Amino acid sequence: MAYSKKPLVGIIMGSSSDSRIMQGAAEILDEYKIKHEDQIVSAHRTPARLAEYAKHAEKMGFKIIIAGAGGAAHLPGMIASHTTIPVIGVPILVYNDKHPKKSDTKFSAFGGLDSLLSITEMPSGSPVVAVGINKAGNAGIYAMKMLANEFPDLKNKLQQHKSNQHDSVVKESDQLKKQGLSKFTKNKFK
Amino acid sequence: MAYSKKPLVGIIMGSSSDSRIMQGAAEILDEYKIKHEDQIVSAHRTPARLAEYAKHAEKMGFKIIIAGAGGAAHLPGMIASHTTIPVIGVPILVYNDKHPKKSDTKFSAFGGLDSLLSITEMPSGSPVVAVGINKAGNAGIYAMKMLANEFPDLKNKLQQHKSNQHDSVVKESDQLKKQGLSKFTKNKFK
Amino acid sequence: MAYSKKPLVGIIMGSSSDSRIMQGAAEILDEYKIKHEDQIVSAHRTPARLAEYAKHAEKMGFKIIIAGAGGAAHLPGMIASHTTIPVIGVPILVYNDKHPKKSDTKFSAFGGLDSLLSITEMPSGSPVVAVGINKAGNAGIYAMKMLANEFPDLKNKLQQHKSNQHDSVVKESDQLKKQGLSKFTKNKFK
Amino acid sequence: MAYSKKPLVGIIMGSSSDSRIMQGAAEILDEYKIKHEDQIVSAHRTPARLAEYAKHAEKMGFKIIIAGAGGAAHLPGMIASHTTIPVIGVPILVYNDKHPKKSDTKFSAFGGLDSLLSITEMPSGSPVVAVGINKAGNAGIYAMKMLANEFPDLKNKLQQHKSNQHDSVVKESDQLKKQGLSKFTKNKFK
Amino acid sequence: MAYSKKPLVGIIMGSSSDSRIMQGAAEILDEYKIKHEDQIVSAHRTPARLAEYAKHAEKMGFKIIIAGAGGAAHLPGMIASHTTIPVIGVPILVYNDKHPKKSDTKFSAFGGLDSLLSITEMPSGSPVVAVGINKAGNAGIYAMKMLANEFPDLKNKLQQHKSNQHDSVVKESDQLKKQGLSKFTKNKFK
Amino acid sequence: MAYSKKPLVGIIMGSSSDSRIMQGAAEILDEYKIKHEDQIVSAHRTPARLAEYAKHAEKMGFKIIIAGAGGAAHLPGMIASHTTIPVIGVPILVYNDKHPKKSDTKFSAFGGLDSLLSITEMPSGSPVVAVGINKAGNAGIYAMKMLANEFPDLKNKLQQHKSNQHDSVVKESDQLKKQGLSKFTKNKFK
Amino acid sequence: MAYSKKPLVGIIMGSSSDSRIMQGAAEILDEYKIKHEDQIVSAHRTPARLAEYAKHAEKMGFKIIIAGAGGAAHLPGMIASHTTIPVIGVPILVYNDKHPKKSDTKFSAFGGLDSLLSITEMPSGSPVVAVGINKAGNAGIYAMKMLANEFPDLKNKLQQHKSNQHDSVVKESDQLKKQGLSKFTKNKFK
Amino acid sequence: MAYSKKPLVGIIMGSSSDSRIMQGAAEILDEYKIKHEDQIVSAHRTPARLAEYAKHAEKMGFKIIIAGAGGAAHLPGMIASHTTIPVIGVPILVYNDKHPKKSDTKFSAFGGLDSLLSITEMPSGSPVVAVGINKAGNAGIYAMKMLANEFPDLKNKLQQHKSNQHDSVVKESDQLKKQGLSKFTKNKFK
Repeated sequence: MAYSKKPLVGIIMGSSSDSRIMQGAAEILDEYKIKHEDQIVSAHRTPARLAEYAKHAEKMGFKIIIAGAGGAAHLPGMIASHTTIPVIGVPILVYNDKHPKKSDTKFSAFGGLDSLLSITEMPSGSPVVAVGINKAGNAGIYAMKMLANEFPDLKNKLQQHKSNQHDSVVKESDQLKKQGLSKFTKNKFK
Repeated sequence: MAYSKKPLVGIIMGSSSDSRIMQGAAEILDEYKIKHEDQIVSAHRTPARLAEYAKHAEKMGFKIIIAGAGGAAHLPGMIASHTTIPVIGVPILVYNDKHPKKSDTKFSAFGGLDSLLSITEMPSGSPVVAVGINKAGNAGIYAMKMLANEFPDLKNKLQQHKSNQHDSVVKESDQLKKQGLSKFTKNKFK
Repeated sequence: MAYSKKPLVGIIMGSSSDSRIMQGAAEILDEYKIKHEDQIVSAHRTPARLAEYAKHAEKMGFKIIIAGAGGAAHLPGMIASHTTIPVIGVPILVYNDKHPKKSDTKFSAFGGLDSLLSITEMPSGSPVVAVGINKAGNAGIYAMKMLANEFPDLKNKLQQHKSNQHDSVVKESDQLKKQGLSKFTKNKFK
Repeated sequence: MAYSKKPLVGIIMGSSSDSRIMQGAAEILDEYKIKHEDQIVSAHRTPARLAEYAKHAEKMGFKIIIAGAGGAAHLPGMIASHTTIPVIGVPILVYNDKHPKKSDTKFSAFGGLDSLLSITEMPSGSPVVAVGINKAGNAGIYAMKMLANEFPDLKNKLQQHKSNQHDSVVKESDQLKKQGLSKFTKNKFK
Repeated sequence: MAYSKKPLVGIIMGSSSDSRIMQGAAEILDEYKIKHEDQIVSAHRTPARLAEYAKHAEKMGFKIIIAGAGGAAHLPGMIASHTTIPVIGVPILVYNDKHPKKSDTKFSAFGGLDSLLSITEMPSGSPVVAVGINKAGNAGIYAMKMLANEFPDLKNKLQQHKSNQHDSVVKESDQLKKQGLSKFTKNKFK
Repeated sequence: MAYSKKPLVGIIMGSSSDSRIMQGAAEILDEYKIKHEDQIVSAHRTPARLAEYAKHAEKMGFKIIIAGAGGAAHLPGMIASHTTIPVIGVPILVYNDKHPKKSDTKFSAFGGLDSLLSITEMPSGSPVVAVGINKAGNAGIYAMKMLANEFPDLKNKLQQHKSNQHDSVVKESDQLKKQGLSKFTKNKFK
Repeated sequence: MAYSKKPLVGIIMGSSSDSRIMQGAAEILDEYKIKHEDQIVSAHRTPARLAEYAKHAEKMGFKIIIAGAGGAAHLPGMIASHTTIPVIGVPILVYNDKHPKKSDTKFSAFGGLDSLLSITEMPSGSPVVAVGINKAGNAGIYAMKMLANEFPDLKNKLQQHKSNQHDSVVKESDQLKKQGLSKFTKNKFK
Repeated sequence: MAYSKKPLVGIIMGSSSDSRIMQGAAEILDEYKIKHEDQIVSAHRTPARLAEYAKHAEKMGFKIIIAGAGGAAHLPGMIASHTTIPVIGVPILVYNDKHPKKSDTKFSAFGGLDSLLSITEMPSGSPVVAVGINKAGNAGIYAMKMLANEFPDLKNKLQQHKSNQHDSVVKESDQLKKQGLSKFTKNKFK
């Protein structure tokens, strides 16, 4: 059963090619049964949509916007300037593997640093926050942490998630301790 | 009148020398009448306090933790690993001006990039978000955006803040337009 | 006598504190007798002004917009997305010398690289061009080169400027050659 | 029907291996029916051609020069020093995929940052502007924006282009919104 | 015959995917007959294990802890904060080659610099030392150098190792000198 | 009472101007009553001293060498190549404040990154470890951690040091908590 | 006919795996008929050979040493410290394509910047010069320029080489100009 | 007595403000009694002088050109393209201390890395070599090493210089060893 009939989170991205990365956020929200609405809003190709989307988001009652963008990555900061809804920015770095012949000419040259700084280095008074490069899944979990302030049941799920993580690491560690690094690695990587 | 008798936000920092920067967050919270509790928690000098503080924060019912740290900046990520409360990390870069004679030997050599990446590049499943270098004030405003989901009155204040910002820019712009750049700059900078 | 009764160039900047740098562009335009209109347009504090200014610029018939911004520096790219007028971006890096006591806590940590990349790394289809960090004067001269396609007299002035530059270098070089480096440097720097 | 019988834009590059990238500029110009002349001018292998080409460009009446170069990338700045025609620099980063066996020994080690800075960081008085790494297409569109000051019909085409971009994003966004991220991504990438 | 019945070195890593790199340390220790215990301790997924492991390490009498971690790489510094046992940090940078289809979306964007600085830039009073990116083998040899202060026989082995290295270089150099670069390279690489 | 009549640690540096930084290591050793011998060994100005010093260090029975160097910083790696004694490298970045008039022409341009990488990125088989930029004090404490394996009393002192650190942070935190950030900062910085 | 019966240039490298890159220097020397002697001298695996090689080089009468090294790249600077023969450093960055399975664990993480700075940032008084990353061929041509001061016939060959370069560029440029970018690129890359 | 009546070395720089740095090269040449001719040649303000100067240098019989430049730093590479005389490039980074009030707006933002790469990353076939940032003195000594191939007496002077360096280090080291770090540092820095 979902926490709300209406979407609580708006996921946006600057280009359809970012969807492969941003899916990581959607997967977390789906797992936690948080409804979300997904759109493409390009700060540069559809600048008028920035204000429109902000109004739409306010009207829809989104509590969080997760915004992914690569390159100059203006989208998270520009959306944040149009609304009081908190925006989580995801710096995106995509390599082109659909057109391998062109793979030598299309890529981001700065390892995503350009996008990360374009999200964090906002002027005083206009904050956006960033997760790590391509860490859309972490943006999803962070959104859960924010919503857990209103939906205490989410807090339990997050604690269960932490507990599962812990158990899974301990289990692997016990295997490693028993087998030793050489045998463990051999088993794991072939 | 404050929104809650108990503090809603915990502000922590890795060292007392970070207080000058972190005060920027406190000023915003004070302005918006949000109670906060301020502490020093050093990931490296008081590692046992990480778990203690996390428990304390849960018990106090903090809805947000703002954590500032410089250098290796492990504090935000480590606190986030101990709790489901969302953590906003502030990468800190302080120059020493209290002991000018030693100012040539004590400073962070990487412009804060080390601290920023140590906050954002958390592994999948353990998110922290970052604002820009030394942008504690932006962490404060972002916290207001998060709390505004529960306290709609904050939303009005944030919109008023945006509106004031807008008016102040327009006023300055009108001066600039009227005076031209040369005269405006002369007036402004001496 | 000016080339046009109306301003041909719009100079904008993200904050009044950028005026000290952007004045470098105004000085060149004034020297070449090109009228310009100067405004402050903050992508983040006045997002609605982006579209408004773009319309204003089209209506005014600006042929070039020179846009300076520091930090995340979204202004040049966002204005360019709203208009077909060519935009020259100036990445700005300002150190605070008005409040020396605070000079250790307020500055851009990345040497302007964040601003430069935020201007150049625009997506395909939405170009902005950049000059060097703080090189507002070069943006002014580049604007003259663009306008010289329509106002041939400007071409002559630019050539005269080049010629003067050449002569001035040759004169200094002759002094240097005659005096030798040691004597020349001593004369020049003390 | 073209806008001029003579080429209005000169496209130059430092090496024939840059042609794959620079074709992006030619494609835009062809699409907008702007005649261009394409040449190879190596600042280092044919230094005498710098002055010759500049004279040629002036005589031909080029209104814009688009200059692409990788590595030390002196070409855009050196051509700009020889002429008053505005120069748009394209920093080039090419990976060698023609000789895969040698692909480990031939590449630019700095992600194009060396080329970008070599183009933008020109001294005061000698401006070149840069688009993003390998963004020759953006150089082409920027040239259209410049020419649109003289050929108003180009302005209409640019606006039509913007409008098409907008519609194409909205169409994709509607698909995404309807299908949700998971289904949309599955359809798009498999 | 081993130097001790109990393990003298604890090898830990933040994730089982780091085992491929950390095996380089284990191989050296095995070669020098130094017993080691291998575990996974995630600073972020198992924060409570940091203190537990530190106690375990003290009780076991480990003389050295080798700790590998990628991304934000808090593990080495956090373990060091919990114990007086010297910690050698290994910054890890792993490319995903098990799931090539996903290889474009999962990697560390900063070439390991984020991890290196997160290990070295610890605050005064809480030292960790680092070897180079992925140089787990060097961490192993450095551990041998440390243990050789107590087990002089290890010193002999290390000297023998140096001597073998020397002889192997001289042998290859003699081949190179005799064959010349062209022939030598042809023989070596095909 | 010292732990040994002979020095246990050799401190070396590439230049006498590094002594101001390296003193940080000496202060720690003095505090822990560990005798040390201090020398200048320049990899480039006294290359023959590298082998001589290594022999001297072996003969003296040094258990650890702490080697500081700036710029290309070859000293730590070169000494390590001549001996099996473990070497702790300190990357040094010194600003010139003795000759303020020349302070604009003499400094390291890369924030110490050049020195850090020159220490850590040693080839496989020849390890040096590094502490953070200018963190000579941390090199001193790390040396104490190494020696504590042989001198258990040092372990107690290190634990006492940790305990003192903890208490001092708690005391400051209690002040901060009681006074709040604004008052605490005002008291601390004025 | 060679210029000298004895080798005039010593080519050295830190590892046999560098031979693939350094061959670029040998090819130039062979083409210009300059005898060279090729050796492996590892600063770290054979430190004693540094002084030996320097003496050997002086005795052999080498006029130039070309020294290639990757990673920490101490070799060029250390050899230069042992001799008055001018040393040209080649920063080397090699990707491992012989063992593709291991290709994810072995590479230089800093794009060669670590090696470049380790070569150029030598202290005052101990110069080494550097060519670009992997540009061993350029080191070879630079050596020819140096030797041309003594062997004027080499000057003619270098001028002939420049002239050939020029003609080859002009020929390609004429093709490009005639065919246009699209056709030229199609012919060249398929 | 000088080695030649005519200058053997041409020193050039891009701007008279570079003379303060380039004087470091002149001082070395004067000390070694090598005549040099000093000029200003700006690649961008006097592009025609590049070819003229190259011809002048050939006619004068210069054996070496030392070329300093900051920012985009095209000068060394462009001169090298016009002549077969070997060029030593000096990347220059000057801070403005003549106009302290403007010191916050005029400086090179990239620590000289832009200039270094613009000098080293020349294309294959057109080499320039670089010394470290602002290391004009090292360019001077390197020139002496080159000339020593023709003037063996210079070799003796260089060896004497090395010997003096060695003795001076040993003397300081003996003081340091005797006084210990604390006392030595106190004496040296106060």
